[in-house]
Amino acid sequence: MGLKTFFEPKSIAIVGASRHPRKIGNVILRNFLELKYSGNLYVVNPNAEEVLGQKTYNSIKEVPEPVELAIIATPSEKIFSLLEDCSSKKIKEIIVIGAGFSDSGNVKQEEKLKELIKKKKLNVLGPNCLGIYDSYSGIDTLFFPREKLDRPKKGAISLVCQSGSIGAIMIDKMAQENCGIRRFISYGTIGLDESDFIELLGKDDHTKVICLYIENLKDGRKFLDACKRVSKKKPIVAIKTGLPKTKEIKNIYKGAFKQARILQAETLDELFDYARILEKGKRASGNKMQVITNGGGIATRILDELDKVGLKLAELGKQTIEHLHREMPSFVNISNPLNLVADANDERFKIAIESSLQDKGVDALIVSLMPQSPAITINIIKLMKGLYESTEKPMYLVVPGGSFADTIKREFEEHLPSFSSPANAVKAIKALEKYYSSFYVEKPKAKSKTSQK
Amino acid sequence: MGLKTFFEPKSIAIVGASRHPRKIGNVILRNFLELKYSGNLYVVNPNAEEVLGQKTYNSIKEVPEPVELAIIATPSEKIFSLLEDCSSKKIKEIIVIGAGFSDSGNVKQEEKLKELIKKKKLNVLGPNCLGIYDSYSGIDTLFFPREKLDRPKKGAISLVCQSGSIGAIMIDKMAQENCGIRRFISYGTIGLDESDFIELLGKDDHTKVICLYIENLKDGRKFLDACKRVSKKKPIVAIKTGLPKTKEIKNIYKGAFKQARILQAETLDELFDYARILEKGKRASGNKMQVITNGGGIATRILDELDKVGLKLAELGKQTIEHLHREMPSFVNISNPLNLVADANDERFKIAIESSLQDKGVDALIVSLMPQSPAITINIIKLMKGLYESTEKPMYLVVPGGSFADTIKREFEEHLPSFSSPANAVKAIKALEKYYSSFYVEKPKAKSKTSQK
Repeated sequence: MGLKTFFEPKSIAIVGASRHPRKIGNVILRNFLELKYSGNLYVVNPNAEEVLGQKTYNSIKEVPEPVELAIIATPSEKIFSLLEDCSSKKIKEIIVIGAGFSDSGNVKQEEKLKELIKKKKLNVLGPNCLGIYDSYSGIDTLFFPREKLDRPKKGAISLVCQSGSIGAIMIDKMAQENCGIRRFISYGTIGLDESDFIELLGKDDHTKVICLYIENLKDGRKFLDACKRVSKKKPIVAIKTGLPKTKEIKNIYKGAFKQARILQAETLDELFDYARILEKGKRASGNKMQVITNGGGIATRILDELDKVGLKLAELGKQTIEHLHREMPSFVNISNPLNLVADANDERFKIAIESSLQDKGVDALIVSLMPQSPAITINIIKLMKGLYESTEKPMYLVVPGGSFADTIKREFEEHLPSFSSPANAVKAIKALEKYYSSFYVEKPKAKSKTSQK
Repeated sequence: MGLKTFFEPKSIAIVGASRHPRKIGNVILRNFLELKYSGNLYVVNPNAEEVLGQKTYNSIKEVPEPVELAIIATPSEKIFSLLEDCSSKKIKEIIVIGAGFSDSGNVKQEEKLKELIKKKKLNVLGPNCLGIYDSYSGIDTLFFPREKLDRPKKGAISLVCQSGSIGAIMIDKMAQENCGIRRFISYGTIGLDESDFIELLGKDDHTKVICLYIENLKDGRKFLDACKRVSKKKPIVAIKTGLPKTKEIKNIYKGAFKQARILQAETLDELFDYARILEKGKRASGNKMQVITNGGGIATRILDELDKVGLKLAELGKQTIEHLHREMPSFVNISNPLNLVADANDERFKIAIESSLQDKGVDALIVSLMPQSPAITINIIKLMKGLYESTEKPMYLVVPGGSFADTIKREFEEHLPSFSSPANAVKAIKALEKYYSSFYVEKPKAKSKTSQK
């Protein structure tokens, strides 16, 4: 079967599904039931007749039909016998949620566990992990109730996370920000490692960007080799945390990441922003930006941030300037940044953006838009979508503010990369530029049939 | 009358209150009507009999009673005659909302305006500003509809903003994050300047922190003198944007800010975080932090950030360690960070926090809490409030994630400084530490009557 079974199992056994609603095993089962999982679901709990209306088995060996994936949510001391049971039942793919090995100082037990996994040739995800979320198949082993931790919609970002908590936070934030996900893997401390899944996602057509959170590399050589292979085909963005304290070792990591064409993030916000700009962003033909805004101060902030990272300001062409002088009210100063003034309506934005998109001196647009302005209507969302889709030229939105602005920003995010602050936007734009200038491997052009005619 | 009139006027005239709901003057009037302003409100519009049910006057001179504050929301070309009108009506305090002078290249007109203001001895706020928001008196001249831009509750942060758009964004964000405000002043480009209001807020008992956004200092000497005087009494945090591009000039600014004891922020998020940690934060007796968490990865991120800014990890005392060994489940590793593990409930947090608060080796606590965990209940909010109020020791919360986590974070923010990311939290904690170690001026101890007895 192999690793794909984790994402598309035809039958699942949940071992240790407790009756108590605040226990991890109970939440996992509840999530599967709410999900209306279409495969066969078996519940193993020797201490209860039934859990959440589901018949239980005393042991996984008692399940009468074959099982493809086992999810184990019991305390750590039971793991050994449960893995033996799985093995006799011919289950190779197993997710072990609970902690309690080297993370709690039990190094000896951990060695014993590694030996057992090797001997029985098991594919174990965990222990100390969240397991899997797959937005296509619907598999969701996260022990967080959905009313407390939202799940993202379908998308093209896949997330490989050593830490369960960071994984949960990323998932939650992606859902909140209307950002799509393909697959999520939280792999914990012992069994399968990041490289196994990087290879798998490299071959997955639905994954456009691979996003990594790494604390300790289990096998550095294997990891770099996997990334080198995969990053030829799709971007990899990563945060390496729990960093060694010396500058030398930090630089060694930096160098190795660069060699493997991994875009390195410094904070979780950067990781999130880099992943989504790589998913949606277009390749710019240069680094000259046109800034358009309905608030002067926010444009000044953007300019400061552009200066910090070395991105340039475009100079509008003569034709564009003449056109804008004709079309704009006299109090709009035709320059860069182009401040359309606080009373700018949708139409004024449309004119400014259209003419900047047509200007060859402009490589990309940063549009800082305050939808809070009374002059802006809800039609601005459709307008921006249309403008973004009308061209190959990159355009990014900055939509700063509170609740209303955030709601509009999420709507924009459906169509184009949108940020809530100048600093976040510019750092992400710079990361995208770095990807294309340093890491991107040009694909050999496929011979077009039409051009041969 | 003086500058206080801007915040507590007994009578107001809105000049240029349009009938069109998307026009600035209309929104301002609507906001005043919704607010149920208790003073006398007069509407000036020569082109309409009534606006939003309010009788109009053709000119401010026709208003039969005295007017303390005029709010002018007309195009720039009418400003001169309107200021003359105000002067004959003996109105000294005037807010001019609209732009259209040096911001649009009209330098000559701007000089003329300055002369008129000087000649008539007017206190003009603007042009090109949002005016005033005062959470105590309810005065609100922001031309943003409340359904699009929320207003913060009462608080102790006052905000002085050269840019209207940045001001609006800060106001909106403060409201969203459940952060309180005292007064907001957006002062624009020509009339009154930042120093005038810094002095005023220095004397204002309700203002605990002054927060500044500055593009161009109108009078650098006056500004630094004002800040030096005021920062002896209360913290000032500022962002200087539109920075000159050379490193030398940046360093001159840095030095001058330091001399005036101004805490400098680099981004809007920092400005916001520094202001609220200064408002609520307690003074730590040292820089040794205890990190407590229910997610290992997020604790690792916090450690990386602490390392970046040079904050240290505390070592728990022998007694604390023994106590925690007795009270905690065996799989909890008693150390720093203290990872209570994903299944930690409210009670486990209580025990860990209480014993760290009592430990003399711990100067402050960073509690990273994922309320998404099924084991955490809503009682955690009351619990944290109680713990925070039980001691002088600082405690900070990191509550990362999506919508549910944000909601809980805002509830926490009611009581103690709470952040959504490790990077933001640690930067703010470092800023607070910097304030107390470098800028804070010890108040002379008042002779206590009880001790004299």
